[in-house]
Amino acid sequence: MTKSWGYAAQAAGSDLMKSDIERRALGAKDVLLEIRYCGLCHSDLHAVDNDMGMTLYPIVPGHEIVGRIAAVGTEVSKFKVGDVAAIGCYTDSCSHCVYCEQDKQQLCSGFVGAFGGYERDGKQRTYGGFSNNYVANEDYVFRMPANLDPAAAAPLLCAGITTWSPLRLWKVGPGMNVGVVGLGGLGHMAVKLAVALGAQVSVFTTSAGKKQDALDLGARTAIVSTDPAAMEKATGQFDFILDTVAAQHDINGYLGALKPEGVFCVLGIAPGELGFMNLPLVFGQKVIAGSLIGGLRDTQEMLDFCGRNNITATIELLPASRINEAFKRLHKNDVKYRFVLDMAAQGGR
Amino acid sequence: MTKSWGYAAQAAGSDLMKSDIERRALGAKDVLLEIRYCGLCHSDLHAVDNDMGMTLYPIVPGHEIVGRIAAVGTEVSKFKVGDVAAIGCYTDSCSHCVYCEQDKQQLCSGFVGAFGGYERDGKQRTYGGFSNNYVANEDYVFRMPANLDPAAAAPLLCAGITTWSPLRLWKVGPGMNVGVVGLGGLGHMAVKLAVALGAQVSVFTTSAGKKQDALDLGARTAIVSTDPAAMEKATGQFDFILDTVAAQHDINGYLGALKPEGVFCVLGIAPGELGFMNLPLVFGQKVIAGSLIGGLRDTQEMLDFCGRNNITATIELLPASRINEAFKRLHKNDVKYRFVLDMAAQGGR
Repeated sequence: MTKSWGYAAQAAGSDLMKSDIERRALGAKDVLLEIRYCGLCHSDLHAVDNDMGMTLYPIVPGHEIVGRIAAVGTEVSKFKVGDVAAIGCYTDSCSHCVYCEQDKQQLCSGFVGAFGGYERDGKQRTYGGFSNNYVANEDYVFRMPANLDPAAAAPLLCAGITTWSPLRLWKVGPGMNVGVVGLGGLGHMAVKLAVALGAQVSVFTTSAGKKQDALDLGARTAIVSTDPAAMEKATGQFDFILDTVAAQHDINGYLGALKPEGVFCVLGIAPGELGFMNLPLVFGQKVIAGSLIGGLRDTQEMLDFCGRNNITATIELLPASRINEAFKRLHKNDVKYRFVLDMAAQGGR
Repeated sequence: MTKSWGYAAQAAGSDLMKSDIERRALGAKDVLLEIRYCGLCHSDLHAVDNDMGMTLYPIVPGHEIVGRIAAVGTEVSKFKVGDVAAIGCYTDSCSHCVYCEQDKQQLCSGFVGAFGGYERDGKQRTYGGFSNNYVANEDYVFRMPANLDPAAAAPLLCAGITTWSPLRLWKVGPGMNVGVVGLGGLGHMAVKLAVALGAQVSVFTTSAGKKQDALDLGARTAIVSTDPAAMEKATGQFDFILDTVAAQHDINGYLGALKPEGVFCVLGIAPGELGFMNLPLVFGQKVIAGSLIGGLRDTQEMLDFCGRNNITATIELLPASRINEAFKRLHKNDVKYRFVLDMAAQGGR
C-alpha cells in the first residue's frame, strides 16, 4: 500500500478534513504522481454534497490533477522521475471494449473515476487529487506541455477536455458560428478552445454584466439570453451551441438560435429534465447531444493543442488549507473561472 | 391556368367538398400529372384542422401522390406522356442554397409544400393531391418503379421518405439494433425499410395487441413500452430508435434503451414539448435528433430501393368519394396502416 493523505469529507455537508488514506502499491505499469495542483470542479461539489445520491464516504474529491512523477514501475515507458504529468477524471477502464478501442474510455462500463469509487479490483477505494499523491497506470496519465503554467493548466484535465471533446466530435472550426451558454469553469474554456479552433464564438449569458468578460476571453459577441430582442436576432444563426449550465433551464431559445442541422450539445451535469419544443427540432433537423469528458488520446491532443496555443484556464489559486473556503465560494459561483488549490502550500510536504 | 378540381375544406372542422381549383399553366420544365392515387397522412389532418394555426383556407390536402404524366412542357427530359410518376411533400425550392445543393431541399427557406401555401411567385395557391391533376417542375416529380402497386406505393412519398431519410443519415444497416416507436403510417414503413436495410428491428408499442402486427411486418421483437420489466430488459440495447409518435409522450424510457452514443430520432409533428433527463444523455453521450421528410435524390433512391425490394405501404384503399370517412377514421387512428384514396373511383374523370 501507498500511504497518502487527502482532504476528505465524512458526510454530506461536513467540511473537508486532512485525513490519512491508502492507495495501491506501485505496480509495474504504474507511476506515483506527487500532486502539486488540483482544480475544483462543480462535480466535486455535487459528489461531496451527495447530490446524485451515490456518494461513498469518506470522499476525497479532485480530478484536475497536476504534479511531478516521483516514482515509476518497472515497465513504465512514458515517464521518468521528475516529469510534469497530469491525471484527469478517470484512471482506468477495461481497455478492450468497443468504446476503449475508439478512444471513448469515458463510455466504458469498466470506467474507474479518479475518486469516489473503487478500482477495477472492486476493493481498493479511489481517492481524488486533493491529496499529496496518486498511483495510476501510466496509460491514464498525461504529459504536460512544458510551457504551460502547471497551476492554470490543471483545469484542462476536466473543464478543458469536457469542452474540447464535443468541439472536435462535431467538427468545430473556421467559418462556424459557435455559441457557448454559461461562462463558468467549462464555459470559459469552451470560449478559449473554440476561438483557438478558428470559430466565431458568441457567449449566451443571463447577465449583461458578463458581456465584457466574454469579449475579454475572445468571444466576438455576448448575447443576453433574457433579452427577447437579442434572442430574436440570434434566431437561426448558430452551427453549434455548447451548453455548460449545470442546472434546470429553458433550452428552447438556444435551439431556436441554431441553423437547420445545428447541434446543441449539453455538458452540464444536473439532475432533472430539460424540455424541448418538438416542431422546431423536426422542421430544422436539429440535434441535441450529450457529451461526457473525452478519451485518453483526445485528452493528450487537447493538452498538446493548449501547449501550442498557450491556452490555460483563468484561475484563482488558493493554498490547500483554504479548501473549505473554495468549496463554499464555488457553491455561490463566486469564482472567475476556476479554483485551483496548491497542495504544497499548506505545509504538508 | 390549368383548370382542376380538388376536395377542399373551407374551414376547420368542415367536411372536404369537391371544388374547382386553378393550377398554374404548364411551363417549359413542367409536367401535368393526372392523379390516380393519393395517401392520407396525419399532417393532412393537422392542416385541415388548423392544429398549427397556420392553415390557409380553402385547403386541398394530399401529398402522397401517384398518377400518370398527361402532358409535358417543351423542355421536359425526364418524363414522357403515359409514364407513371409521383409527387411528394414539396414541389419547389430555391435550388441554389446550401441545403438544396446538399439534397436537403426540405430545409430550404424557399421550400414550397405540395399544398396549403403559395408557389415561389407568392401568388399562385398550392393545392394538394386529393384532386384530379397537378402541375409541377419535373425536378420535383419522381419516377415510379414499374413493379410496385401504384396505390400501395403512394405512401412512400411521405411515410416512406420520412423514415428512409433518417435511417440513411444515421447509417442504419446490418448489425444494428433499431427500435421503432409507434406502429402507424410512419412506423410500419420504418419497420419495413429498416428490416430491408439489414437491421434487427424491434417495435415499441403501448399495446400488447400489436405485437403480432409488428412481427408480421418483419420486426424481430415487440416491446410493450408500458411494461416496466420489458423496458428494463431493453436498457442499453439499441443503436438507433425512430420515434414516429405525433403526440406528447414520455421519451426517457426510449433514451434509456439506447446504447452509449445511440441516436433517438423524432419524426412526429405535434405541438408542445418533450422532456429528457439530462444525466443519462450526458453520461451516455446520446443524441436526440429531429428529421423532416428527405431530399429529392434521397426520395428517388428510396423509391428505387423499394422497387428492388418490392416494398410498399400496407394500405386500405377507398374511393375518393369516401374521403370524409377516411379523415374521420384517421382521427381515431382506425387504419392499418395508411388510407389511400382512388381519385378515379368517384366518377370525376
